[in-house]
Amino acid sequence: MDAQPLYQRLADHYRRAIQSGVLAPAERIPSVRSLVRTHRVSLSTALQACRQLESDGLIEARPRSGYFVRPRHRAATLPAKEPDPNRPLDPASFVGIHDRVSDFIAKCERHATPFDFALAAASPAHYPADALKQAMMRALRQHPEMLVKRVPPLGHPDLRAVLARRALEVGMNLDPDEIVITHGCIEALNLALRAVARPGDTIAVESPVYFGLLQVLESLGLRALEIPTSPQHGISVDALELALQTHPRLRAVVVVPNFQNPLGCVMPDNEKARLAALCERQQVAVIEDDTYGSLCDDGQLRPAVKAWDRTGNVIYCASMHKTLAPGMRLGWMSGGRWSSRVAMLKFAQSRPNEPLAQAAVAEYMGSKAYDRHMNRLRLQLKRQRTRVAEAIGDYFPPGTRMSLPVGGMLLWVELPGRRSSDQIFELALAQGIRTAPGTMFSNSGRYGHFLRLSCGSDYTSRMDAAMRTLGAIVAAAR
Amino acid sequence: MDAQPLYQRLADHYRRAIQSGVLAPAERIPSVRSLVRTHRVSLSTALQACRQLESDGLIEARPRSGYFVRPRHRAATLPAKEPDPNRPLDPASFVGIHDRVSDFIAKCERHATPFDFALAAASPAHYPADALKQAMMRALRQHPEMLVKRVPPLGHPDLRAVLARRALEVGMNLDPDEIVITHGCIEALNLALRAVARPGDTIAVESPVYFGLLQVLESLGLRALEIPTSPQHGISVDALELALQTHPRLRAVVVVPNFQNPLGCVMPDNEKARLAALCERQQVAVIEDDTYGSLCDDGQLRPAVKAWDRTGNVIYCASMHKTLAPGMRLGWMSGGRWSSRVAMLKFAQSRPNEPLAQAAVAEYMGSKAYDRHMNRLRLQLKRQRTRVAEAIGDYFPPGTRMSLPVGGMLLWVELPGRRSSDQIFELALAQGIRTAPGTMFSNSGRYGHFLRLSCGSDYTSRMDAAMRTLGAIVAAAR
Repeated sequence: MDAQPLYQRLADHYRRAIQSGVLAPAERIPSVRSLVRTHRVSLSTALQACRQLESDGLIEARPRSGYFVRPRHRAATLPAKEPDPNRPLDPASFVGIHDRVSDFIAKCERHATPFDFALAAASPAHYPADALKQAMMRALRQHPEMLVKRVPPLGHPDLRAVLARRALEVGMNLDPDEIVITHGCIEALNLALRAVARPGDTIAVESPVYFGLLQVLESLGLRALEIPTSPQHGISVDALELALQTHPRLRAVVVVPNFQNPLGCVMPDNEKARLAALCERQQVAVIEDDTYGSLCDDGQLRPAVKAWDRTGNVIYCASMHKTLAPGMRLGWMSGGRWSSRVAMLKFAQSRPNEPLAQAAVAEYMGSKAYDRHMNRLRLQLKRQRTRVAEAIGDYFPPGTRMSLPVGGMLLWVELPGRRSSDQIFELALAQGIRTAPGTMFSNSGRYGHFLRLSCGSDYTSRMDAAMRTLGAIVAAAR
Repeated sequence: MDAQPLYQRLADHYRRAIQSGVLAPAERIPSVRSLVRTHRVSLSTALQACRQLESDGLIEARPRSGYFVRPRHRAATLPAKEPDPNRPLDPASFVGIHDRVSDFIAKCERHATPFDFALAAASPAHYPADALKQAMMRALRQHPEMLVKRVPPLGHPDLRAVLARRALEVGMNLDPDEIVITHGCIEALNLALRAVARPGDTIAVESPVYFGLLQVLESLGLRALEIPTSPQHGISVDALELALQTHPRLRAVVVVPNFQNPLGCVMPDNEKARLAALCERQQVAVIEDDTYGSLCDDGQLRPAVKAWDRTGNVIYCASMHKTLAPGMRLGWMSGGRWSSRVAMLKFAQSRPNEPLAQAAVAEYMGSKAYDRHMNRLRLQLKRQRTRVAEAIGDYFPPGTRMSLPVGGMLLWVELPGRRSSDQIFELALAQGIRTAPGTMFSNSGRYGHFLRLSCGSDYTSRMDAAMRTLGAIVAAAR
């Protein structure tokens, strides 16, 4: 305990007081001067402690008045609603989402947007650019010939070995030779879908679902069947089981079992096991996208659905895009019983990835520095997500609903009174605030009164002002 | 003239003597000592002159006997046959080539092969690894944030600007915003085919044709219709015109107009113009793969078919894979009237390429160093191609046919007496010599007595011995 810096012990002292209610919301905390006197610490220690409490979202500075306990209105945010179990499924349909998403991207790019709550990535400062740069430089110095030699098949052996080792942590025992390095998770999803389905086939997806997956289905001429998904425990395996009886051309189900995009939910282990068993029995492929799995607040990695796979019926896809380096476009997959078809498709679609980035990431992911980075990133995202959630509680109108995920960087917010999130998106954008309207997360138009807010950036007082503005826009909308 | 180093003037002196026949094939040339005496040059100058003549393929060293004029048997190689104009077309058919190609690759990888005449790339030493490494390092130092930021759409603006400028040299006037950077030319071909065709459609291709394209067609469920292609002037536009009348589901024709793989032929300008006009009239897309275009012996870039495109009916695809950096996997395309569909498919298939390699290549391709590199590479490939062609003349049995391309790195050799190139491939592989059997270059089995030989590597005396062995294997085969 004594190993902690003095300022941190001081901050913890007041943290406990705030959490226990000894210091109430909106109450002034002792001034920096009185902290110096009372605790016999230096001015800089007292200041550091206050800044720590501020960055943890416990206190806030008011100009010329000192620090105050931040007001807590969390009761104002209602929990997210569960999907109605009796709701009939929307029919499986060809996806028509690309124009909507393109329009969204084009509009975002037309406006200068200092406040980005749309991009599902942490801000660049949260990723280890310098360490990766150094690893790239080392790889370039040691093996410049990588730039001019034929690329090794399936991906760099070192990276595949590191990923196989890390896969043990989520319950998967993978042969490195089953691992294919891809251009991000998006290419992995393309290859997985092409391996198991043909144009015209139906694919079951979560609802709401990441719009990028809908675009992939659209581009491949596949039909989407949206399965009700709980904001608490993910896709309804019951609903999927029913759907399998009525949809004979259903070839696969795509799930994001851990910190789903946009819901942030995690499937409980028993549901993962049920899903794996059901799909194995019915000979329907499971395509698992575990892009967010490592971003768990508590550092306890949740198992993959593939951990319950006994026959190669689960294709596992993941990415280093959200965790490590959005600019390096590295993803990977293990194709299960479709491994050789996946390898063929990867070769025919884009050939193996260029080796340099792989060599650098293999070095970094094999080191303790990666674990330290991940721990920092998890804390950072947790803190930011908490602050944005609090701001929603503080500034959004009563009746707003939301569940608070325990990982990832996303919040899925249901606006009260069926306000149009498309309209709110436009109004907010005009104020320099990017959000992601719910209409992009389904082929059905079912989520027109939802917003996805990404919490990837440092929560500054300017961000707080932006959230206040956003809250006012939502409150004023009809 | 006096600016030439002394050794080169000396070498030129004997070059003229050999070319004029003053010194006959197999004749001994004056010893190094007598060169020193006769021409009053230093020993090192005399030696350098001999080495120059040797590397130019004019003389050869025989152990303990000195240098001899290399024997010339070029008359033994007959010119390549033109395709029979009355030969009926093979029916359009789904491609089944992947297993054959996989088997070929697996066999190649099982054998240690010091002599690679199969890989269609120059040896790593011929590419500017060091300059590219330096450019990468600069890009990393200046913009490490590239690694951790969202990637810019369509590709790095600097690279697209450089490519648009370079495109002027092959007669194309492209808007940089029409250019999409891809993972090699193979991804560009995938996107082009997916933009214009659906599974089950028919695509016209050259015959013989690069097996990689056949694999792409196979993986996309497209039918291939092989069009007779002349070893001198490329695809028969007449045959294509006839095919268009009988194949209503023909959606596109894929051509490699410059230094075709495997033939090495170049379409004359008037044929390129006819092809563009015919396809525009018939509303059939032209997909042009210009991967080898810059590898012209004389440095005179041949125009693209797209230079005659008036309505966006030509999709242009190319690559930096053969010219600059096989390990960087960079390609690019301009989608013509399918540009927005191509952009959508690229986004849905793999997202924009990671920017680092693009930044480095943009810098390099924008500099004079790139032009110097290309001039060196062209000379190198010309020399190597000439030497391999001579070795075929020297060592292959009478009746062997071949045309000698004026660019690229490939030779397409017809073996006499319908010898099986599959069998020769296996026998040569057992001797450490990789070749590419003709069966991979068609869906029809029409080229079972052809070999493709790649001339990407320095032609050493050990390579010459390997060619002698290969010739003996061919001669002994039945």
